[in-house]
Formats: sequence, structure tokens, C-alpha cells
Amino acid sequence: MKLLYPNSLKLDVSGLEGFGVSLHCYDVQKPVPEDLIDAEILVTWVNTNLPDAAKRMWNLRWVQSLWAGPNGELSAGFAPNVIITAGTNLHDETVAEHALALLLSAARRLHEMRDYQSQGKWPGHLGGPLPDRPKGSFTSLKGANVLIWGMGNIGRKVAPHLIGLGANVRGVGLYEEIIDGIQVQTNAALPDLLPKTDALIMILPGSKATFNALNAERLALLPSHAWVINVGRGVCVDEDALADALQKGQKGGIGGAALDVFHEEPLPRSSPLWNAPNLIMSPHAAGGRPRYSEMLIADNLRRFLAGQPLRNNVSSGGMYASSTPQEKTPVKASL
Amino acid sequence: MKLLYPNSLKLDVSGLEGFGVSLHCYDVQKPVPEDLIDAEILVTWVNTNLPDAAKRMWNLRWVQSLWAGPNGELSAGFAPNVIITAGTNLHDETVAEHALALLLSAARRLHEMRDYQSQGKWPGHLGGPLPDRPKGSFTSLKGANVLIWGMGNIGRKVAPHLIGLGANVRGVGLYEEIIDGIQVQTNAALPDLLPKTDALIMILPGSKATFNALNAERLALLPSHAWVINVGRGVCVDEDALADALQKGQKGGIGGAALDVFHEEPLPRSSPLWNAPNLIMSPHAAGGRPRYSEMLIADNLRRFLAGQPLRNNVSSGGMYASSTPQEKTPVKASL
Repeated sequence: MKLLYPNSLKLDVSGLEGFGVSLHCYDVQKPVPEDLIDAEILVTWVNTNLPDAAKRMWNLRWVQSLWAGPNGELSAGFAPNVIITAGTNLHDETVAEHALALLLSAARRLHEMRDYQSQGKWPGHLGGPLPDRPKGSFTSLKGANVLIWGMGNIGRKVAPHLIGLGANVRGVGLYEEIIDGIQVQTNAALPDLLPKTDALIMILPGSKATFNALNAERLALLPSHAWVINVGRGVCVDEDALADALQKGQKGGIGGAALDVFHEEPLPRSSPLWNAPNLIMSPHAAGGRPRYSEMLIADNLRRFLAGQPLRNNVSSGGMYASSTPQEKTPVKASL
Repeated sequence: MKLLYPNSLKLDVSGLEGFGVSLHCYDVQKPVPEDLIDAEILVTWVNTNLPDAAKRMWNLRWVQSLWAGPNGELSAGFAPNVIITAGTNLHDETVAEHALALLLSAARRLHEMRDYQSQGKWPGHLGGPLPDRPKGSFTSLKGANVLIWGMGNIGRKVAPHLIGLGANVRGVGLYEEIIDGIQVQTNAALPDLLPKTDALIMILPGSKATFNALNAERLALLPSHAWVINVGRGVCVDEDALADALQKGQKGGIGGAALDVFHEEPLPRSSPLWNAPNLIMSPHAAGGRPRYSEMLIADNLRRFLAGQPLRNNVSSGGMYASSTPQEKTPVKASL
């Protein structure tokens, strides 16, 4: 049995040995070579050769993507009996770290300081003796009400850091439940939660149900000092409405936004976000660096050989339908 | 007995009631009024009236500053029998949070992203699929070797956050010891520690012993990808040597620096740091927002009334010489 692993990232393939499966590196930008075309297993990362592989790999039984949202794999035309598994969890740490970086940068006004520095100016008003957390401000995580909208794997990863810094953390998810001690409510609670929110962290997957989830109506419910962080999917934010709220600022708008994802990337020159005040722009940099890939591949390889359900099975007609509890939460969507 | 509290910050003085001491607000920028001049206790914050108060307050016995380093109070000319206590610990949380913000901003390259955004450009090369923590880089706290130089109260506060993000944390302090599970060594270990450091967080107090502590020789020991964060005192860094190391960058220099403090503030236009690459400038914004002041004042007031040693006594000839163990560590120096 052959497993093909991609040349597009550094994998420690010694962690995949011991299964009696032969391991072969392949170029993700070229057609799969003839001598590997009979492989049963294909691990994928930033491939451009998937439609060709889908046509030619007649013996393929399983595609392990390292994306959390393997849209390319799902739409490449693989036969219905080919299982497709996602890289769920591989991006949790990196996205959580980036979300924390954006949130702290917003609270401590690092973006404003940078703008002054770029102009050769000393932003004295942002330093020196200042009131600690004046009413109607977001200047520290301490005591801040942080709402995580999309309380999946990444939300669970970022929450303890926020709590450690003194934030009051609540979540919005698909179900009313307690996750790691955090009260999670559904979208129905947003009208109650948003007006009390100092910082809203969005980690929603992209879907019809979440399209423009943060719209003008919901933005209007946020306090005028509130910040919005989006490390989920760009399509979950109505960008025109957000730009409008940023322009309004303290006059009925919001305090700021730090976005890692956008409806269209790179962000088009015509977007009103380019000129919106207090907008921190990050070029889809939160994830994109899968971590612990070898452990996921090895675990799924063991399951595959044992005839057990694979983790993170996202294929509709797969013979190994996943039954692990974590599938209850939506597939992580940041990448 | 009268206690005067400053009008320069919001204090919840209800937390100082119950001692039978009368509480009076005073203007820190004006001479203390005649009817308050016989007060025994003076709480200070950003005062400009201290030399006058030192001359006229004939009944004064104790000055409680809210600065961690109350240089103004110590040099105002108060009589030797007046106890001066510092605001040690009141700035730990805010400085630790700012240090974390600067460190994460450095790791995730938010400053570079901001520069592109300011120019209307999309920094695509900083996002999308990227290698996770390539060798010789500082792109995540995960697995990073972080050295805290000045392992006092703030260092203890910031360390758990770094550990939570996956960093390997070590400390340099006055003594060889284990603090909260972290191995702390002395300056003598720097030649061993610096070459293994991905990020150096400096939280040293300002003194003759720490003047230009990070000099050209020690900068040369850091790997060329290492970042330096300084939230202690500006005088602890040789700024010319640092600017030189930043200019060299990967060619024998360092990766970057995020400075909240400088030899002279505002940073003079002539400083080479203005044009140094990968320099994140923050205008002494880490602290300056005392937190939990009421608890410290109330505890010291109780001790004062009970004839017990006061906490954070920094006066040389005070009658209540402090004997609390925390005095072993140097007075926190960021503000």
C-alpha cells in the first residue's frame, strides 16, 4: 500500500513509519507520476494538481487534507467512494495565537502607535499616566467582556488565554452548553450579549447560514467602543456595514476591527475598508501553518488499516462515516 | 488623622473608610491648602507639588506613592523621618499585558502588516500558507525560547501567559533560584543563555548596575532572528548598539526590537532608532495605570495605624523599615 505525502511542507515522515505502508513524496504542482498513480492514500497541502489526481488515481481510497476546510479536495472530482478527511485542529494553536495578538494589539493601540512612528512622531498621548480602563473603553483584557462567536476548537483554544488575562469570556455556538466552563448560547442570545460586549471574536465557518452574520443590525447592537476581531471566514462579516460602523466610530458605530479574513482576498482596492479608521488588516495570516500533521495522519492511517472510522471525515458518501463526538462542532473554518 | 488622596486618578475611597481617618481629596498640581497642611498621610500620583508639600507639611509622617519607582517622591526633600512607600505591584498586570502584546505583535509581524496597510498594499507574503516556525525564525510563541531578564513581579506575571502559549521560559535575576517553576540564573549565565534565545524580554530596574546592560557585546550573542522587548527602563539598553544590531539584521544583527522605554522620552529626533528596521516603538505605555491602589493604601494604612512595617517602604531612614520577603527583589522599574 502506498501513501503519497506532499512536498509543500516539511513533514517528519518517520512518524508515519511502522505501518507497513510505503511512503512517497510527490510534487503538489505536477501530475502524480505514473509509478505512484496506484497509491491508495494521498495527503494534500496547497495542491494545484487535484483534478488531475482525481481523474487518474484509479486505486485511491482516502485523501487526507491538511486544511481545516478542504474545499479544493471536496470539489476536485474524487470518486464518491474516496474518503476525504480534513486537517481539523491542525490550525487551532496558530489561529488562536493570532487572534490573541490582534486583540491585544487593539486593546493596547499598537496600530495607532505604529502610524505615529511611521510619520516620525512620538504618540505621547497613548503613553504616560493614563486612566485604567475608563468607562466605555476597551484598553485591557482585564475585566473586558469578550464574546467568542463560533465556539469551536479554536475558540476553546483561545479562551483560556483571555481568561488568564482577566477577561469575562462568553461564547456563541450551535447549542446551549457549557464548554470548558464557558457559558455558550445560541445566536438567539446575540441581542442580549452584543450590547454588553467589549470585544467580539468571530471564529465562524463560512456557509450560507453564516453569510454576513455580522450585519448592520447586529453591529448597531455593539457598544461604540467595542472591537471586532475576525479570524474565521471573511464572508461572515458584511464589510460595507462594518466600514460604515468604523466611520461612525464613537458616534453610534464601533471602536475598531481587526480582520484576518475578507470576502475577497487580496482585499480589492475598491473596498471601503482600506480607508476605514481603526481597522487592523491582516492578510489571512492566522493559520496556514499546519501543526502536528504527522500525529493526525498517523492516527488516521492506523484507523484506516484497522477499518475504523477516520477522524475529520468530511466526505458525504464515505464508507468510514465519522462518529467521533468532536464532529458535533462545525468544521473549523479559518483555513 | 488626615489622609490626602490625589485628584489625578479615580480612587474608590470607600475602600479606605473604617479606619477613623478623615479622607480629603487634593489637587496634585497646586500647593496643598492650608486647612489640609497638617495631614499625616499623603497619597501621590503624577504630582507637581511635591517640593512645596515637603516644605510645608510639618505633620507629615507617610507618603504613599502609586509609582513603582517613586523617584519624584524620593527627591522632593521630605524630612528623613517621613516614610515613603512605593506602588510596587500596582503596575504588574498592565505592564505584563503590554509586554505580551508587543511580543505577539513581533512574532506575528503585525507591524509589517500595518506598514503595508498604510501604503494601501496587501502584504500577501505575510499570510497564506507558510512554513510553521522555520528554523532560525521567531514566528510563534510555541516552542520559542523566551528569556525574561529581570525576573521580578512583572516577570512572574507575564511568564504563565508565555508558558500557556507554549514558550520555553527561563529567567535572569539577582539570585540563582526557581521562581514559580522557572529556572532563574544570574547575569553570569547570559553568555550561555543569550545564544539560545528567540525573544528576550527586559524588565530591569534603572540603576547604575543596569545601565546599558544590553550592550553591543551581549547583542552580538543573540541569534540574528532574536527579538528584544523592553518594558523595564530605557537606560538598560545601549540604543546606538541596538540600532546597529537592527540595521545588520540577519547579517550578524538581531531580528527586531519592541521598546516601550528609552533613554530619553520622547525619543529625540536624532536617535538612530527612528530609522532602524524592525523596531516597534511604544511611548512608555506599558504601565502608568495603577490597579488595586485602594487595596495597597488600605493595607498600608492598617499597618501604619497598628505600628507595623509598611509594605514597599523605599525610604532609607524610615522608622518602619520593611521586612517583608518581597523586598528581596528589586523595586519594579517600569514606572
